[in-house]
Amino acid sequence: MTMDWSSFTYCISMAGTVAFAVTAVLAIRSESDIDIVGAIILGLITATGGGTLRDIILGVPSFWSEDLTYIWVATAASIAALYGRSFFSHRYLFGLMLYVDGLGAALFGIQGAEKAWALGFGLPVAPIILGLTTAIGGGIMRDILAGRTTLLMRHEIYATPVILSATLFIILLNYFPEYRVLGSFLCILAAFALRAAAIHWNLSMPAFAIKPRN
Amino acid sequence: MTMDWSSFTYCISMAGTVAFAVTAVLAIRSESDIDIVGAIILGLITATGGGTLRDIILGVPSFWSEDLTYIWVATAASIAALYGRSFFSHRYLFGLMLYVDGLGAALFGIQGAEKAWALGFGLPVAPIILGLTTAIGGGIMRDILAGRTTLLMRHEIYATPVILSATLFIILLNYFPEYRVLGSFLCILAAFALRAAAIHWNLSMPAFAIKPRN
Amino acid sequence: MTMDWSSFTYCISMAGTVAFAVTAVLAIRSESDIDIVGAIILGLITATGGGTLRDIILGVPSFWSEDLTYIWVATAASIAALYGRSFFSHRYLFGLMLYVDGLGAALFGIQGAEKAWALGFGLPVAPIILGLTTAIGGGIMRDILAGRTTLLMRHEIYATPVILSATLFIILLNYFPEYRVLGSFLCILAAFALRAAAIHWNLSMPAFAIKPRN
Repeated sequence: MTMDWSSFTYCISMAGTVAFAVTAVLAIRSESDIDIVGAIILGLITATGGGTLRDIILGVPSFWSEDLTYIWVATAASIAALYGRSFFSHRYLFGLMLYVDGLGAALFGIQGAEKAWALGFGLPVAPIILGLTTAIGGGIMRDILAGRTTLLMRHEIYATPVILSATLFIILLNYFPEYRVLGSFLCILAAFALRAAAIHWNLSMPAFAIKPRN
Repeated sequence: MTMDWSSFTYCISMAGTVAFAVTAVLAIRSESDIDIVGAIILGLITATGGGTLRDIILGVPSFWSEDLTYIWVATAASIAALYGRSFFSHRYLFGLMLYVDGLGAALFGIQGAEKAWALGFGLPVAPIILGLTTAIGGGIMRDILAGRTTLLMRHEIYATPVILSATLFIILLNYFPEYRVLGSFLCILAAFALRAAAIHWNLSMPAFAIKPRN
Repeated sequence: MTMDWSSFTYCISMAGTVAFAVTAVLAIRSESDIDIVGAIILGLITATGGGTLRDIILGVPSFWSEDLTYIWVATAASIAALYGRSFFSHRYLFGLMLYVDGLGAALFGIQGAEKAWALGFGLPVAPIILGLTTAIGGGIMRDILAGRTTLLMRHEIYATPVILSATLFIILLNYFPEYRVLGSFLCILAAFALRAAAIHWNLSMPAFAIKPRN
């Protein structure tokens, strides 16, 4: 049995949706409890917020209104994360979730860029911005809703792989449109590899990229 | 003189708009003063933010652009709440405002669900999400703008009645579309009754629905 | 060589874009460092967020998707502000930036009002709201992303000049549509003069406009 490219990316989408929702619910500290309704709303917004914002800016219907599986999967993952907290907090599973979250962000970034590109929206730069919006928009909403420092103010290497890979992808689409599928595969892989390296070695942004001391 | 259903819901809409704006302005603690311009903007966003977000996601013009009464009423209510603070803070009137706020949320939830349903948007689940967006979107924006813990992170029974009644309403619309008006009346009543009980007995979410201790 | 009105306002737009991005990046306190990627995203959102929100509410394509110069200018300004921090923090240059920010807000407010007016969106009040959205939306997003008290909760005279000038402009458009260009020039000037006075004399909202003590 072979799996085609779109089925493959669909599976990664769903895994990314699970990881976004689960890590959002797990990230709620014990000092600020959350109940089941709050957890579902937080998980849903985290998992679908970036793509929703992208679709609003593009002026197209929200992706989840045309495939409610995203809603069901994010809801189920949020409930599981709340009640299976000790299970998901297990060192190996939580570590796995971080990597799946990174894989999801890598995929969503390229998907967002491709959607904007296909619509001819603000070429050539806007697709990169909308890829980034898709990948990190939900995470920023999660941080704001949970009252945490937004990921913009941390030095994690999270947005950078998405920006680099989306930029590369747009260059590829421009010069070698016939390699769209292969190119998107390689760009997702590159973004994920960079993010995985950042998780594995606990890398943060290099000193020259951080505001110099006055 | 009889009042038809749409005039009746319009009156509740306006009362809800007043209550959303007034409670938003009153909720500003004395340590973080607000001036008249800030109060109007905060009141307007709280009263109209949820419906505006729903309309953006639905891709239809903002409801208030087609009936500016919402803008005038929210503006007047915000000003009244700022200058009539001691009046509105009176125990009975503030209590009344909490109930009217709950009635407004109950109505806005069903109205939002119905609007999405009428547009055939992401049936059958998206109308529930958009009903909830209409009812609590403005309150979440208020909490973010005022720098408070968002209502997602409290254990108040606020979103739950809206979710339950919107779900019931969508089931009703699906199986008994001929009872739309009666059904919406009963669903609004049910959501309001649950919210009113939560206010009256100061109920919060039951323990099994809250994140278990690790 | 003469410069026509639209070239003139375009230059102010770009100067305002620079000032919005630069002041956003400079406002990050040293205790919460920001890296180059975070700074670019913060600068971009601050500089373009208000106009993007206006365009979303109006249901038209984002202005920057049709003129990517806004993106390039905001990106370059954010990078310059991060690495040229000590340069931009110089007393005179930072002071100048505050005035240019005020000039940008004055222009964006009138531009936003005019765009809504031209589309016949919610006349006569909605254009004032959308002018204000254009002028202060990005600043509010900046405050939320940076975890600071939003400008709604401070007593700065920032939104007031925009509201007053947009109101005046809408009255002018209604009664003297033939003076549109002259009227917009005078309204921008009036808003800027009021904001400049507030910066120069460090004015805040008068006591009667602030929540009275209980």
